[in-house]
Amino acid sequence: MPSSDPKQEFKLLCPAPITSEECIVLAHGGGGRMTSRLIDDVFAPAFDNPYLAARHDSAVLPTGACTGSRPRIAFTTDSYVVQPLIFPGGDIGTLAVNGTVNDLAMAGARPRWLSAAFILEEGLPISTLQHVVQSMRRAADIAQVQIVTGDTKVVDHGKGDGIFITTAGIGEIEHDLELGPAGVQNGDIVLLSGDIARHGTAVMLQREGLGLEGPTIASDCASVADAALSLIDAGIPVRCMRDLTRGGLATALVEIAVGSEKHIHIQEDKIPVQAEVQAACELLGFDPLYIANEGRFIAFVPLDRSDEALALLRQHKDCRDARAIGTVRDDRPGQVSMRSVFGANRLISMLSGEQLPRIC
Amino acid sequence: MPSSDPKQEFKLLCPAPITSEECIVLAHGGGGRMTSRLIDDVFAPAFDNPYLAARHDSAVLPTGACTGSRPRIAFTTDSYVVQPLIFPGGDIGTLAVNGTVNDLAMAGARPRWLSAAFILEEGLPISTLQHVVQSMRRAADIAQVQIVTGDTKVVDHGKGDGIFITTAGIGEIEHDLELGPAGVQNGDIVLLSGDIARHGTAVMLQREGLGLEGPTIASDCASVADAALSLIDAGIPVRCMRDLTRGGLATALVEIAVGSEKHIHIQEDKIPVQAEVQAACELLGFDPLYIANEGRFIAFVPLDRSDEALALLRQHKDCRDARAIGTVRDDRPGQVSMRSVFGANRLISMLSGEQLPRIC
Repeated sequence: MPSSDPKQEFKLLCPAPITSEECIVLAHGGGGRMTSRLIDDVFAPAFDNPYLAARHDSAVLPTGACTGSRPRIAFTTDSYVVQPLIFPGGDIGTLAVNGTVNDLAMAGARPRWLSAAFILEEGLPISTLQHVVQSMRRAADIAQVQIVTGDTKVVDHGKGDGIFITTAGIGEIEHDLELGPAGVQNGDIVLLSGDIARHGTAVMLQREGLGLEGPTIASDCASVADAALSLIDAGIPVRCMRDLTRGGLATALVEIAVGSEKHIHIQEDKIPVQAEVQAACELLGFDPLYIANEGRFIAFVPLDRSDEALALLRQHKDCRDARAIGTVRDDRPGQVSMRSVFGANRLISMLSGEQLPRIC
Repeated sequence: MPSSDPKQEFKLLCPAPITSEECIVLAHGGGGRMTSRLIDDVFAPAFDNPYLAARHDSAVLPTGACTGSRPRIAFTTDSYVVQPLIFPGGDIGTLAVNGTVNDLAMAGARPRWLSAAFILEEGLPISTLQHVVQSMRRAADIAQVQIVTGDTKVVDHGKGDGIFITTAGIGEIEHDLELGPAGVQNGDIVLLSGDIARHGTAVMLQREGLGLEGPTIASDCASVADAALSLIDAGIPVRCMRDLTRGGLATALVEIAVGSEKHIHIQEDKIPVQAEVQAACELLGFDPLYIANEGRFIAFVPLDRSDEALALLRQHKDCRDARAIGTVRDDRPGQVSMRSVFGANRLISMLSGEQLPRIC
C-alpha cells in the first residue's frame, strides 16, 4: 500500500529527499533549499542533538566551569571558498573573520576568539597568502577578536583553489535573552541594518570581469557585532537577529518565518539598494533580495522599543542607513509577504538552488 | 655592513626565511620545518597574541563568564584533506573527530563540543558523504563529544578533492595543571601510549594500491582522551602531552625538547612498531619515527609517578602496549637523542619537508 507509506508521500515534496545515487552539485552549497535538504537528510539525522537542532548560526552552549550562575558561550564555524580571493571591499580573509564574528553576534554573543584553518593549493604565491593573512589581522583587530589557534594543510595543484579558510569562533553571552525565531512575537518590528546586495554583486562582477560604468560596487563586508550588541546592551528585548549571507534577505526572512510560525510582512520601498547595485542586478538577472551580504543583519524587536533600537543602530558606521522594513503578524504562519513598490503583495520563498555560487 | 644585519645572518638558516616570490609546496603542509617556517614568517607575526604564541595544539582560554573561580576552556582546529577518503581503520570522518578530540585532550581538556565544516567537490556521490558522516557520528559517540554546529560549501569539480573537513573543538579544563613543554623537568619519564607508524603507513599503502602479504595494516585512529585524562584524574602531575600526528614521534619530541630547553633521550628498543609496519616502512623507505599516528600520544610525567601512570594507561584499550621510552635530561638543551637497537646514539631532528603528503 504505497499511498499509506509516509516515505512515499515525502517523495512528492520539492526538492525531493536525497537518494543515495545522487551527487553533490554546486546548489548544495548555496544556502537555499538544496542546502536545507542536505542538512535535513544527511547531517541532522547523524549529528542529532538539541544544539544542532536549534538551527542557529551559532550553537549556544552551557559552560560547566562554574556552578550557580548561568555562563553560556556561543560556538560557530564557516568555511570560505570565495572566488576571486580578492574583490572590491575585501578578500577571503576579511570574509573569514567577519562572517564568523557576525554569526556569533547574531546569537547575542560577544565575539572573543577565532580559530583559522587554511587549505592551500600547491603553487599559491605566498605573497597572496600574506595579503589575506594581513586582512584577517586587520578585521580581527576591528572586531576585537583574537585568532588563537590554527592549522595549515596543503593539497596538490588542481585539488584546491588557491585558498580555502575555515574559521570557528567562540563568543561569550553576557545576558539572559534567548534569541531565536521562537522568540519572535506578533507585532514585532523587523529592522534591517543597511542597504542590501552589495557583497554578492561585487564578487560576481569581479569574477566575470564586468566593469560597469559608474562607481565601483564594493562588498559591505564588515563586523556587525558592535551594532547588534548595542541593542542588547541597551536592554532592548531583542527577539531574534540574523545576518543576511548566502540566500540574502529573503532566505533569512523565510527561515525566521518558518521557525517562528509567524507571518513576516515587509515593504519593498523600505529596503535600501544602491542604484548601481540595482542596475547591476537587473543587468545580470538577479533579485537583490536573494543576494548575499556580509555586513548586514535583521533584528526583530518589540514595537515599543523599535524607534530606540533604530536610533541605536544608526549610530554605527555600517548601519547609518538602517530602516524598519516590516512587521510580524499572526495570520499566515511561516510565510513572508512583500508589498512591492507598485503596491502589489507577493509571497517571498526560499531559492531552490543557488543564485551565485561561491560568493563566500 | 651586511654581516651585522641580523636579517642577513638569518638567511644562513636552513630552511631559509620565506620570500615573497615563493609559492606554496606540499611540504608547507607536512608538519615539519617548512610548516614551522610558514607559521613563523606568515601566521605568527600577523596573528600575534599569547595564546597563539604558546604553540600548543589547543589554545587555553579564560572564560570570563564567572568570577572568583578560574574557568578555562581549550579551543583547537584542524583541517582534514586525507586521500583516499576511506582507508583501513578509518576514514576522513573518524580522523576529523578523533584528531580534534585528541588535540583538546593533549591540553588536559575534556572534549565537549565540535564544529564540522565541509568543503565538498561537485560530483561527490552523496553516499560517500553519508558514509563519512556516519563515521563522524560513531567517533563522536565514542569520544563523548557533540557536533553542535557546522557549515557546508560546494566547490566546482576540479577545484577540490571529494571532501575536505575542518573541525574545531572546545574542551573544558577541570584542573589547575599548566600543561606544556615549559613544565617538563629534568628526570621526567617519557611515556608512549602504544605502537607507532600505523596510520601513515595504512593510508600510504591504500593510496598507492600496494597490497602487502600478511595482515592488513590498519590506522590507529582513535580518541586518546579517556586515557590521557585518566592520568590527570588520578592526580598525577603530568607535565606535557602531545599526540603524534604529522611528523610522528620524532617531530613531537623535537618540538618539546626545543620548547622545554631540555634534552630528551629515548631508546629505540622500547618503541613498539608492528612487524608488518616495520617491513612496509623499510620497503617504502620511510622511518617509522616520522610517520603520522592518529591515536598515539606521549606524556611526560615525574619519575616517582611513572609506574602508576603507565599502569593507568594500560587499562585503556588503545594503550595496552604503552611503554616508558625515555628520560629528560639537563645536558644538551633542545636536543633529542636515541640509543639505537645496536647501541649507538644518534640525534633526532625535525624533517625539513614532508615524508608523506596528505595523510590527515
